[in-house]
Amino acid sequence: MTTPADTPPASPISTDVLIIGAGPVGLFAAFEAGVIGLSSQIVDNIERVGGQCIELYPDKPIYDIPAIPVCTARELVDRLVEQIRPFAPPLHLGHRVETVERLDNGHWLARTDKGLAFEAAAILIAGGNGSFVPQRLLLEEAVPLEGRHVHYSVPKLDDFAGKKVIVAGGGDSALDWALALRKVAQHVTLVHRRSGFSAADSSVANMRRAVEAREMDFAVGTITSLSAPDGQLQSVELRQAEGSAHLEADHVLVLFGLVADLGPIAKWGIEVQGGRITVDTSNYESTCPGIFAAGDIAGYPNKQKLILSGFHEASLALRKAYNYAFPDKKRVHIHSSYDTKLAERVAASHA
Amino acid sequence: MTTPADTPPASPISTDVLIIGAGPVGLFAAFEAGVIGLSSQIVDNIERVGGQCIELYPDKPIYDIPAIPVCTARELVDRLVEQIRPFAPPLHLGHRVETVERLDNGHWLARTDKGLAFEAAAILIAGGNGSFVPQRLLLEEAVPLEGRHVHYSVPKLDDFAGKKVIVAGGGDSALDWALALRKVAQHVTLVHRRSGFSAADSSVANMRRAVEAREMDFAVGTITSLSAPDGQLQSVELRQAEGSAHLEADHVLVLFGLVADLGPIAKWGIEVQGGRITVDTSNYESTCPGIFAAGDIAGYPNKQKLILSGFHEASLALRKAYNYAFPDKKRVHIHSSYDTKLAERVAASHA
Repeated sequence: MTTPADTPPASPISTDVLIIGAGPVGLFAAFEAGVIGLSSQIVDNIERVGGQCIELYPDKPIYDIPAIPVCTARELVDRLVEQIRPFAPPLHLGHRVETVERLDNGHWLARTDKGLAFEAAAILIAGGNGSFVPQRLLLEEAVPLEGRHVHYSVPKLDDFAGKKVIVAGGGDSALDWALALRKVAQHVTLVHRRSGFSAADSSVANMRRAVEAREMDFAVGTITSLSAPDGQLQSVELRQAEGSAHLEADHVLVLFGLVADLGPIAKWGIEVQGGRITVDTSNYESTCPGIFAAGDIAGYPNKQKLILSGFHEASLALRKAYNYAFPDKKRVHIHSSYDTKLAERVAASHA
Repeated sequence: MTTPADTPPASPISTDVLIIGAGPVGLFAAFEAGVIGLSSQIVDNIERVGGQCIELYPDKPIYDIPAIPVCTARELVDRLVEQIRPFAPPLHLGHRVETVERLDNGHWLARTDKGLAFEAAAILIAGGNGSFVPQRLLLEEAVPLEGRHVHYSVPKLDDFAGKKVIVAGGGDSALDWALALRKVAQHVTLVHRRSGFSAADSSVANMRRAVEAREMDFAVGTITSLSAPDGQLQSVELRQAEGSAHLEADHVLVLFGLVADLGPIAKWGIEVQGGRITVDTSNYESTCPGIFAAGDIAGYPNKQKLILSGFHEASLALRKAYNYAFPDKKRVHIHSSYDTKLAERVAASHA
């Protein structure tokens, strides 16, 4: 497996199948593509392979992968990475596919946020629950202030120097940033809907000490509105157990944690229901011919979010995808046991 | 896993799911049943677990089991046997389910050829390509002679004592039986359509020596008719490269090898097309409510005969089966990683 230097090429990278998602299902899809004779390229928004398995529960034991009585999520991913080695599918990590458009030749042109482009006969979306994105402040007036006054991450601490900052959230990230910002900002108020935190005891203790020492404030409440005349944030309205509070603020840093979001996929013209891509269970094709979905992101009646289901879905999707890559060729099913070319590839990949 | 002493019980064995077939899909199905809280019993016609994997290609490497870069069929079966140990599903090997009938309570009553009976809320047929049965002599007149003059196995060598026997076939089994029978029979003729054999070199050499020593005969040809006036076999007509031959015979032992056959399943009132049980791909239920099929025996548009597909099919089928076993209970999906009871079971099964 190679991770090519991702300098935007002059022309799109041509491939039979573009696999979106490098979780277990996306990885295995690259193997299945190779077995039936399709080239593939894998793109993932996250900087490493493994998807949810690695992001959410790398060390938890998994018991329901067929013929693997127990393994951690990390071991599962390692095994899949080894399995796909014979086909060495190029991996483009840290790239998010933003747009997908149909070309005159029936192929798909996909572009990433970092300028990569792919021309693919078929696309397999193995996107898990979508991208993990920060949970937003659910206020209409927050949207035009994003990036200037309302923030979901801190690119540079100095941007807050001398400012009145409200940090919203009750996890480690909110506490740690509030503590860090108190040293550069004019004033920091941590706002959380309750007085308990979902954070390390030491962070909570540090914060309480900082509040006692009047280095920062802490307020229990929920932000209900932002006041920003002429697009400049001036204050924040807080609903509290009894009445409300009004806090002056130049910036609001919202750290409510990550939530899964379909992201740009929702804009590709594919039918989506309840956050899942609607697919046909005979070939896991979406409502756009040539675009397939497998794993948690695929939706159909009685869908079960099992990793083993994603493996099956990807395998069937790729067999239909073959028809788009080679419309004039009849795919011949060869049992993996009798595929001598595959046996040689596997042996060579371990040499 | 236990293999109970299979003495026919007075009343049927009660179970949530009866799994027919102890190949990879049937074995994994017992695991999935256990995970979601269903009891199961496994029945297989063959005397050992593993199905086609063990019968047809035990030592061939398999490459396309997800997260197992390579394993032999035998290793795959061993891994599955280990995986299902926490649920210890009772195995009834060497039993063929002959009849299935619906009870007034909506459950199914299944009876085997050896007198076992099961009452099950649901049945999952994971029967591969069906039962392996001897390939028949394709002659109408052979049917009424079966068991008396036309045989597909040798229960007792003495039954052929002093008789004129024709052994048909070119594999190990045909050669070995011809050699054994020459010692008790009045006369043995081995008949095969060509002079080459698909058998061990030593068996072929032994046979040729026996023919030279006039202890038996060998004829190249194909049996085209049987002459049996009054239901008593007298002779066999052979088509040969040039003309035909006429051989006197009391018995014909046909050893053409095994072929897959749906067997009694075809008579249970389930829709079968092209040797496959028609299923709905959202739950792999057959046209009979409560009877499901998974693995090679399940048929639907774009069906691929992949072991990994059988795992998915069984998993979805069992989730629907749950509704038949517990019509008033809502099944709660618990990710295997977060199922502490399962973790304890797995640990206990290895203690």
